[in-house]
Amino acid sequence: MPTYVVRARAETLIPGRRQRLAEQITEAHQRVTGAPRAFVQVVVEDLRGRDHFVDGRAAASGSVWVHGHVPAGWDEPTLAALAKGVREAVVATTGVVEDLVWVYLSEIPPERMIEATVPAVP
Amino acid sequence: MPTYVVRARAETLIPGRRQRLAEQITEAHQRVTGAPRAFVQVVVEDLRGRDHFVDGRAAASGSVWVHGHVPAGWDEPTLAALAKGVREAVVATTGVVEDLVWVYLSEIPPERMIEATVPAVP
Amino acid sequence: MPTYVVRARAETLIPGRRQRLAEQITEAHQRVTGAPRAFVQVVVEDLRGRDHFVDGRAAASGSVWVHGHVPAGWDEPTLAALAKGVREAVVATTGVVEDLVWVYLSEIPPERMIEATVPAVP
Repeated sequence: MPTYVVRARAETLIPGRRQRLAEQITEAHQRVTGAPRAFVQVVVEDLRGRDHFVDGRAAASGSVWVHGHVPAGWDEPTLAALAKGVREAVVATTGVVEDLVWVYLSEIPPERMIEATVPAVP
Repeated sequence: MPTYVVRARAETLIPGRRQRLAEQITEAHQRVTGAPRAFVQVVVEDLRGRDHFVDGRAAASGSVWVHGHVPAGWDEPTLAALAKGVREAVVATTGVVEDLVWVYLSEIPPERMIEATVPAVP
Repeated sequence: MPTYVVRARAETLIPGRRQRLAEQITEAHQRVTGAPRAFVQVVVEDLRGRDHFVDGRAAASGSVWVHGHVPAGWDEPTLAALAKGVREAVVATTGVVEDLVWVYLSEIPPERMIEATVPAVP
């Protein structure tokens, strides 16, 4: 039901790492929230250096930004643990230092989320 | 005033379908909410297979995810009808089965939305 | 701590303008909110003409859409001033007329935002 949009440079998220990162984010989501992993969607988008800025200057090349859109209703400790779990998934699969990882969690009331019911390739 | 971001594989949203999908989403928005269609924005983004995951595995190739950012204030039945109307627009224009369509609706207070006043090509 | 996602055609945001736009948005954020600029992230994404619609038709080619994700808590006048400041930054750096600029501001509670602590290239 949630979707995590991951943005990073292509050299940070080399192809072999993308599926592992998706797996680890999915795993963190299930572990922290108890929700089934079958509807956890992960989308990766490439960032080019010329398109990514922090403090008005070129961002550090290894930066990774994950924006999760999750169903509203979990309490604050759960959401805080979820944000940390997602950060750990990024660190574990990309080797990027924690200091370069951004995680945002936006809530959407579940009644405004329609999810696919045959989501993954069997 | 609203913006719908559509993400799908290039082969699902072949060029001729993009405008028709935008038209149908715009039409659904107007029909359900009564709001004018002149400020309905639709943005399409291509997803590559290696960048799209559900349940930690490659997502079904025909999946379509629409994330709408709409002005806050409509009641729940209207928002539920809007989500369904968007899903129907996707099914009608892409031929994708309903089970592969995701729709999220995020609300933004209208005073935090500045829209273009000369939006479309005449 | 905030992130601004800018979407426009490549010909509107020619390479030399991207950094200047990021600088000006960052500057507007600091000026209006008083928050430090060190954690203002700006991401630019290219829009292709065939992927961008308003009113169900091709959008005007110079349109620029900025979606800011900002920490919740500022009052309405501050958010209104911020939206206008971002619009002015777009106009000043791209030469696009005000009528073609869209700005949305979505709030995220700050405890659901983990930001990088070594964000920019020194």
